[in-house]
Amino acid sequence: MFSFEIEKNLELRPLQATDTSKIYEMIQYSREHLRTFLIFVDLTTKKADTEQFVNETMITNAKGESFVATIYKDGKFCGLVGYNTIDQTNKRAEVGYWLGEPYTGLGIMTKATKVIIDYGFNALALNRIDLKAATANHKSRAVAKRLGFSEEGVIREAEWAHDRYLDHVHYGLLKRDWQQ
Amino acid sequence: MFSFEIEKNLELRPLQATDTSKIYEMIQYSREHLRTFLIFVDLTTKKADTEQFVNETMITNAKGESFVATIYKDGKFCGLVGYNTIDQTNKRAEVGYWLGEPYTGLGIMTKATKVIIDYGFNALALNRIDLKAATANHKSRAVAKRLGFSEEGVIREAEWAHDRYLDHVHYGLLKRDWQQ
Amino acid sequence: MFSFEIEKNLELRPLQATDTSKIYEMIQYSREHLRTFLIFVDLTTKKADTEQFVNETMITNAKGESFVATIYKDGKFCGLVGYNTIDQTNKRAEVGYWLGEPYTGLGIMTKATKVIIDYGFNALALNRIDLKAATANHKSRAVAKRLGFSEEGVIREAEWAHDRYLDHVHYGLLKRDWQQ
Amino acid sequence: MFSFEIEKNLELRPLQATDTSKIYEMIQYSREHLRTFLIFVDLTTKKADTEQFVNETMITNAKGESFVATIYKDGKFCGLVGYNTIDQTNKRAEVGYWLGEPYTGLGIMTKATKVIIDYGFNALALNRIDLKAATANHKSRAVAKRLGFSEEGVIREAEWAHDRYLDHVHYGLLKRDWQQ
Amino acid sequence: MFSFEIEKNLELRPLQATDTSKIYEMIQYSREHLRTFLIFVDLTTKKADTEQFVNETMITNAKGESFVATIYKDGKFCGLVGYNTIDQTNKRAEVGYWLGEPYTGLGIMTKATKVIIDYGFNALALNRIDLKAATANHKSRAVAKRLGFSEEGVIREAEWAHDRYLDHVHYGLLKRDWQQ
Amino acid sequence: MFSFEIEKNLELRPLQATDTSKIYEMIQYSREHLRTFLIFVDLTTKKADTEQFVNETMITNAKGESFVATIYKDGKFCGLVGYNTIDQTNKRAEVGYWLGEPYTGLGIMTKATKVIIDYGFNALALNRIDLKAATANHKSRAVAKRLGFSEEGVIREAEWAHDRYLDHVHYGLLKRDWQQ
Repeated sequence: MFSFEIEKNLELRPLQATDTSKIYEMIQYSREHLRTFLIFVDLTTKKADTEQFVNETMITNAKGESFVATIYKDGKFCGLVGYNTIDQTNKRAEVGYWLGEPYTGLGIMTKATKVIIDYGFNALALNRIDLKAATANHKSRAVAKRLGFSEEGVIREAEWAHDRYLDHVHYGLLKRDWQQ
Repeated sequence: MFSFEIEKNLELRPLQATDTSKIYEMIQYSREHLRTFLIFVDLTTKKADTEQFVNETMITNAKGESFVATIYKDGKFCGLVGYNTIDQTNKRAEVGYWLGEPYTGLGIMTKATKVIIDYGFNALALNRIDLKAATANHKSRAVAKRLGFSEEGVIREAEWAHDRYLDHVHYGLLKRDWQQ
Repeated sequence: MFSFEIEKNLELRPLQATDTSKIYEMIQYSREHLRTFLIFVDLTTKKADTEQFVNETMITNAKGESFVATIYKDGKFCGLVGYNTIDQTNKRAEVGYWLGEPYTGLGIMTKATKVIIDYGFNALALNRIDLKAATANHKSRAVAKRLGFSEEGVIREAEWAHDRYLDHVHYGLLKRDWQQ
Repeated sequence: MFSFEIEKNLELRPLQATDTSKIYEMIQYSREHLRTFLIFVDLTTKKADTEQFVNETMITNAKGESFVATIYKDGKFCGLVGYNTIDQTNKRAEVGYWLGEPYTGLGIMTKATKVIIDYGFNALALNRIDLKAATANHKSRAVAKRLGFSEEGVIREAEWAHDRYLDHVHYGLLKRDWQQ
Repeated sequence: MFSFEIEKNLELRPLQATDTSKIYEMIQYSREHLRTFLIFVDLTTKKADTEQFVNETMITNAKGESFVATIYKDGKFCGLVGYNTIDQTNKRAEVGYWLGEPYTGLGIMTKATKVIIDYGFNALALNRIDLKAATANHKSRAVAKRLGFSEEGVIREAEWAHDRYLDHVHYGLLKRDWQQ
Repeated sequence: MFSFEIEKNLELRPLQATDTSKIYEMIQYSREHLRTFLIFVDLTTKKADTEQFVNETMITNAKGESFVATIYKDGKFCGLVGYNTIDQTNKRAEVGYWLGEPYTGLGIMTKATKVIIDYGFNALALNRIDLKAATANHKSRAVAKRLGFSEEGVIREAEWAHDRYLDHVHYGLLKRDWQQ
């Protein structure tokens, strides 16, 4: 029922129980594309895994402990974007996102993330937004640069990815650097 | 961030933690107006009471066990409308609503409830919507009639209201009677 | 150990864990007889379902949130009667009951319900007792009439019963109308 | 509503929420009399303490983990008797009891405990019932003897009583020794 | 990491999740030896049973509600010793222990229990330590005697052991009798 | 009872409920010294705050979700060191520590942290240990350097400290770089 129009035919919507099937099907469809840098993909082996994620995230969204939204293009689900946790004490949150394979390369992610950042600095009153990307994840790093994030360091072997550790580039964006 | 536009400058929004103060202030402002037929008003003596209601309802909303939305007119909070519980087994829910005193008499409630009924029969797949109004609550009964509810009975002394029992008119609306 | 003698060889007893098998066996024996108007019967497919009901009801009985008793005739379990929920705020509760097939037609239900109503108005200080019966459930409607309940309305398509919706006659009995 | 008649005008009843005030008032009235050997008495300083005991015990009674009953003489509450915990694995439970001061010396406790023991060996299928009494608690030890318990040992400094440790006489009664 | 050296090559260590496999394997290896007097052995039929015991005991250890330690000889796990529950109100706890079969007859149990008793009277400020042994469990009774426990009674048919009841000798040791 | 000897008169011990008073008193004594870089210090205003920390940490320690130890010098409590959370999936944990003011400048922290790192790479099988220090916290940064941590980035405005944001130097140490 509810939505936020980014531009004509592109909108964010609140995560809902009725999204579960659409999310799981998109993960299934885009599995090979997504699994390289999104470790949760290999851990999502059945619809019940997505169901658990959706249920838990709806609750933390409701409590203001997270803010995860769905992205709809022409009325079709295409991905997720938002903050999995929000640190109210330090006014800080880490933004994350993914798109189903058919929706990549269209500029959707930069537009959607821009809206989420705006919402973070304004409605959620954040002071700093974090973004972490594997060094080899060039698409995600391009989104970070386009949105004005600064590269602050490289955290070695930060995450176990199937058969090797990934180094993470750690980006930061401060409220005072953000001009909409 | 998210909203549903009923008409220009009139929208429904998802209930959020940040609504708590606005809801409590409106109850304070409209206390005398609201307390006659809304028993919860006298039980809401401090902001923490509204906070508890909002927190619990956000959780049940997130689980699909309720669907309560806020009404905004010209960007200002003016009331609540929705289903406090949803009976999935029998495809049945009871609609409830209230408006702050400054927003009454403008046709807002009928418009907002109409949208919620539509959402109930379509997105929530309900078969029947209940509506209960005290026999003397003429405004609420007028909303029910305008929206096509049938009067099915009068339940005597159904509710304790401060110092006396209220009789309730019990209305019903079936999906097959609803033409949008 | 504990009991309430309705008349010689007919008594009410507190619901106990040791009743579980007897209740389940009676449901099994009377399944065809009971399932038409008691939807829970088809949902009771194994003893564990009855066990869950008994355990939860013993707890709510203990907390004063319900009052469900067993009916024993000549020392044999024959059915249940009581209030599944008790609304202390509005001094109101809905009475429900069922008897195993071999014990129908003997006047047991009217006698047992009369005792429960007395207990409701006196010990539980209720002001109003509700009773709902499907329009076609003539036996249950006869009990309601015999005990002096007033018919207050017909709630259309109130309950989903296997393959169709049932209309409910909604009865009410007020304390001031009750003469023991 | 429910009761078990021990003899005319003397009965056991299930512990209920409505007993809370009566229990607390009897403890208040008999405080000096009871506190020597019943350590819980000094820990019961306000009605909420009794309320917690009653609520928790009603739940464990409902689950079959305890069996505590109230004693009524001429329709007045006079004390408690029963098993605070029941060890189903070893078919064993410890009986405990207390009477308000006005009801002592009338033989009530022996009669009430006899009924509880009967219920323990028969309905609860116990093999052994324990009874512990401070060495100086002659009244309680007299009940034990009258009912046929054997003295099995003296447990030194078993319990802290306000300002000193009490030795406990540990009694046992086996099912095979019990002749009703 | 942490340990308490009883003597060279014999130490107590805090119970840890990583002990689970070692405990279960020792129970498997010594099953026939242990099952006569330790009823839990027959109830431990799979590693998950030991896992549950270890997890629950680590939590109660952390809360100060129990104190159970592992015994290591030459760096190998050989058994458990400690207090399964601690009664802070009455300054009283019951000591329990078991050793894998290869480690019996070496004096380990007496040495380990002595340390636990010392810790009980000093660090835990106990006034009394209980020890219960089946009448026929001569090894356990010898430990009790060697450590200065007094025999205070014989509790008949105290515990159901597979196919018969065991009588328990109930021992007690008071702080004032303990000379290290 | 249990301990790990770092060197003569310097040991680590498991966190215990009995440490609560000592921890709180040391925070009180060293409040001005500690509060600049340890934000929790200002949030610890009463003993119950420390009690909550100790209770929660003992539970997560017991579950293997954290590993926090106390440091004792000459039998006196002087500080804490360990991992507040352990990320088993990525084999990664962040080390933290603090010493009461009288115990600073003696080399204790470097020695204690070295033992914890050893335990992390060996017993806990970590691959990477994180350490974060405010840019101006020279003592903490010196510990990091002495132990061979690499500086991987500076996270701007990472933490709100009373009246301003602190930048954090983010250090990392990999198992393969660690030679004891």
